[in-house]
Amino acid sequence: MYKIDLNSDLGESFGNYTIGMDDKIIVSISSVNVACGFHASDPVVMQNTVKLAKENNVRIGAHPGFADLVGFGRRNMDVSPAEAKAIVLYQIGALYSFCKAQNVELQHVKPHGALYNTAAKDRMLANAICEAIYEFDKNLIVLGLANSEMINAAQDMGLKVACEIFADRAYEDDGSLVSRNKEGALIHDEELATKRMVRAVKEGKIESITGKDISVTAHSICVHGDGENAVAFTKKIRKQFIAAGISICPLAEIVY
Amino acid sequence: MYKIDLNSDLGESFGNYTIGMDDKIIVSISSVNVACGFHASDPVVMQNTVKLAKENNVRIGAHPGFADLVGFGRRNMDVSPAEAKAIVLYQIGALYSFCKAQNVELQHVKPHGALYNTAAKDRMLANAICEAIYEFDKNLIVLGLANSEMINAAQDMGLKVACEIFADRAYEDDGSLVSRNKEGALIHDEELATKRMVRAVKEGKIESITGKDISVTAHSICVHGDGENAVAFTKKIRKQFIAAGISICPLAEIVY
Amino acid sequence: MYKIDLNSDLGESFGNYTIGMDDKIIVSISSVNVACGFHASDPVVMQNTVKLAKENNVRIGAHPGFADLVGFGRRNMDVSPAEAKAIVLYQIGALYSFCKAQNVELQHVKPHGALYNTAAKDRMLANAICEAIYEFDKNLIVLGLANSEMINAAQDMGLKVACEIFADRAYEDDGSLVSRNKEGALIHDEELATKRMVRAVKEGKIESITGKDISVTAHSICVHGDGENAVAFTKKIRKQFIAAGISICPLAEIVY
Amino acid sequence: MYKIDLNSDLGESFGNYTIGMDDKIIVSISSVNVACGFHASDPVVMQNTVKLAKENNVRIGAHPGFADLVGFGRRNMDVSPAEAKAIVLYQIGALYSFCKAQNVELQHVKPHGALYNTAAKDRMLANAICEAIYEFDKNLIVLGLANSEMINAAQDMGLKVACEIFADRAYEDDGSLVSRNKEGALIHDEELATKRMVRAVKEGKIESITGKDISVTAHSICVHGDGENAVAFTKKIRKQFIAAGISICPLAEIVY
Repeated sequence: MYKIDLNSDLGESFGNYTIGMDDKIIVSISSVNVACGFHASDPVVMQNTVKLAKENNVRIGAHPGFADLVGFGRRNMDVSPAEAKAIVLYQIGALYSFCKAQNVELQHVKPHGALYNTAAKDRMLANAICEAIYEFDKNLIVLGLANSEMINAAQDMGLKVACEIFADRAYEDDGSLVSRNKEGALIHDEELATKRMVRAVKEGKIESITGKDISVTAHSICVHGDGENAVAFTKKIRKQFIAAGISICPLAEIVY
Repeated sequence: MYKIDLNSDLGESFGNYTIGMDDKIIVSISSVNVACGFHASDPVVMQNTVKLAKENNVRIGAHPGFADLVGFGRRNMDVSPAEAKAIVLYQIGALYSFCKAQNVELQHVKPHGALYNTAAKDRMLANAICEAIYEFDKNLIVLGLANSEMINAAQDMGLKVACEIFADRAYEDDGSLVSRNKEGALIHDEELATKRMVRAVKEGKIESITGKDISVTAHSICVHGDGENAVAFTKKIRKQFIAAGISICPLAEIVY
Repeated sequence: MYKIDLNSDLGESFGNYTIGMDDKIIVSISSVNVACGFHASDPVVMQNTVKLAKENNVRIGAHPGFADLVGFGRRNMDVSPAEAKAIVLYQIGALYSFCKAQNVELQHVKPHGALYNTAAKDRMLANAICEAIYEFDKNLIVLGLANSEMINAAQDMGLKVACEIFADRAYEDDGSLVSRNKEGALIHDEELATKRMVRAVKEGKIESITGKDISVTAHSICVHGDGENAVAFTKKIRKQFIAAGISICPLAEIVY
Repeated sequence: MYKIDLNSDLGESFGNYTIGMDDKIIVSISSVNVACGFHASDPVVMQNTVKLAKENNVRIGAHPGFADLVGFGRRNMDVSPAEAKAIVLYQIGALYSFCKAQNVELQHVKPHGALYNTAAKDRMLANAICEAIYEFDKNLIVLGLANSEMINAAQDMGLKVACEIFADRAYEDDGSLVSRNKEGALIHDEELATKRMVRAVKEGKIESITGKDISVTAHSICVHGDGENAVAFTKKIRKQFIAAGISICPLAEIVY
């Protein structure tokens, strides 16, 4: 039977600032990436997001990022591997605390924003992040970009890995994402996007921007938690997966 | 046999800023309170401080404070109980992560600065902090000011409590500390200070500022980690405890 | 001829977080209080807010707050007068820079949130804030709560003062605001609210919560920049002022 | 007559953290670069540093950096030109406020750390910084690395520029600094270092790491404010300049 996880970055509100439609999205996903206070979120928001996930039976992952609140963790920072390891350990522990207090397990770790993007290409950084995860708990699943150095680093370290693909993004022939600056990088046609995802799960193939079929491993699809269309699209993709005989289930039931 | 713990607030350096003589003090104490990044410290410093404690066989406690780096957590902030609980959970978890990665246990929690002082008098705040500790791990020891609301709250919640007294501070008749603004609040005479501490441990008594004998429970003595005299004084008090037949051992061997 | 200023706290967005309907409110007000990066806002938001104000011919004031982004400057912090003076100077200068770069004047200073509320009652804090304003530019107008220590401090220092009153708040017999915790503190009836404001401007009187007429000096009315009703209410109060023969003009044309 | 400015980065303490020997260095320099609270310093420290400079008749410059306190502004951050311009405007204004309150002028602006290093090579970033300076006050002097894009950008914009050279650094044939990772990058021999500086000022020449004579423009020498040898070296270089007939005077008397 075919299985796929739907993950979303939630818990990104901060103090007086509210972002995302967490309570609307949570009902349609199987895994949630919870911001840990460095690029977004704060302790109260983290507590509430863990509660929301628990109530909706959605599995929880830490979503560590660079210490750059004003840049939302999207600006690359030149941190050393030692610093990267330490900030990831810190953030995993902080989120773990709210899980432990509420008696739910931590399922996975997915780096955020610039940390995610840089670690996808920079093996040293990827290694540092994976060491942090391994030392905290070697049973945590690493959720990363399919075909990335992050996935390679995690596999080499003996960690469980889950590959995510993006419904709204085009792919290069080598399996990497087409840069947002390039024409055709974003797939706006929802019908097409969902069809591509269904095929990726069932056949392990996706058509690249040049028209070639490329192989992809898809354990999870990342869906947005904000934007006007996010809730409707998440419901739609969920429905079409089910219609295609693909069951939506958390990472821990796919990767083990 | 008489026992006492010596605790000190270490790991208060931050980025490029170094504070304290951690490696000199650590050899003389039995428990260390490690700053958690809100009022002092950063992830790299926390990692190094846990390593230093482990190497010196010193037991580790979380030292959570207000989110006020520029004020070093010494300025009171009007946080709600819910906010206080969340910031304590966050900080305990963050420190726990470095302990787990290095395979050492977390022994206790001691609030820092204004959070410590306000929770000593404000039962609502004390309750919030104790709830965080209880929900994270009900076997953690709460280290607080002897005769304080913090100790009362922890006891009522069924947590293990350890009371600390201060070698360099005078006491009021009711067992509270004489305010730093008052004449005679600080005890500068080291001979007198150590004698008072030995007596507090052996007899459970300390002479108040008015000359009355008052009862104190002393599980731990707090010694400073910076200041020109800190290292010498810590060695001296340690020596005199041993000379008086009092053994220095971590909280976990005193309170259980 | 009767005159009143309408002021609003805008420019409170931060990085990826958007708050307030600044471009909808700005067209109806005469003075804007711009957050300065401590409790809200960031350098890019400040720059854009100054631009927006300039384009709409609205006069600009600095809106300094406590360094508490996660608490939006609403939690009291125990800062010393010296610290308060320094953080106010810092924030005024930061905003001034964007004004100077865009060739517009700084008109006034209004403390934010807990700094505003505490300075309304604490003369030491009020003095510290006023010293900062005076030393930066003694021609700046201090915008504060009518009948407050902030106004007293500014007047005694020889600064120009402007008193603000609140359309949606009830008043005690002594001219202070009824605490939000008390029954009847908020005036939800918009008709009543605008009538009270018109009377306050024309007669210098407002009915207290006990039904007594009390004297108020009203140079400015504070209107909200967010909330579903803010834009409509601001337009309404503006219209009714004009209908009552009261002209809306910036503080600098009222207080000089 | 030969003239040179001695500049140093001071005012880098933060809250409870003290760094640098500001009061010992200030007596030997002619211009001070004051940290502005993003990579180091806080409002109280800024106020005190301006006071110290004024008392010692040393001219003041803003030393803006990336918003990275834990990294001391030394880690490159991928900011957009618009963000860079806004953070520079913000920081210049913040420091200007303390100058204005104490009735001293702002003389110059020198970017700090990674902002300095990146702007030396990246013309877009250099332009953004120079725009901020120009819009705040086109009479401010831009202090930058000799032969850098920062200097080029400032000159093209019509700003006054001052070039600084480093006593303890070796130079490449093209006039750039030898990277710290390369053998021979640092000049530890103080005699040699001061001789090189004297020659640079008098002859406009410095011997490169390959032994070639290269041309340099030297308006200012940067001396360290911390490190065990900083005070002694600064006194020594000062004495040798004077012995060589070179007068020490602030930038504003050299570049105009």
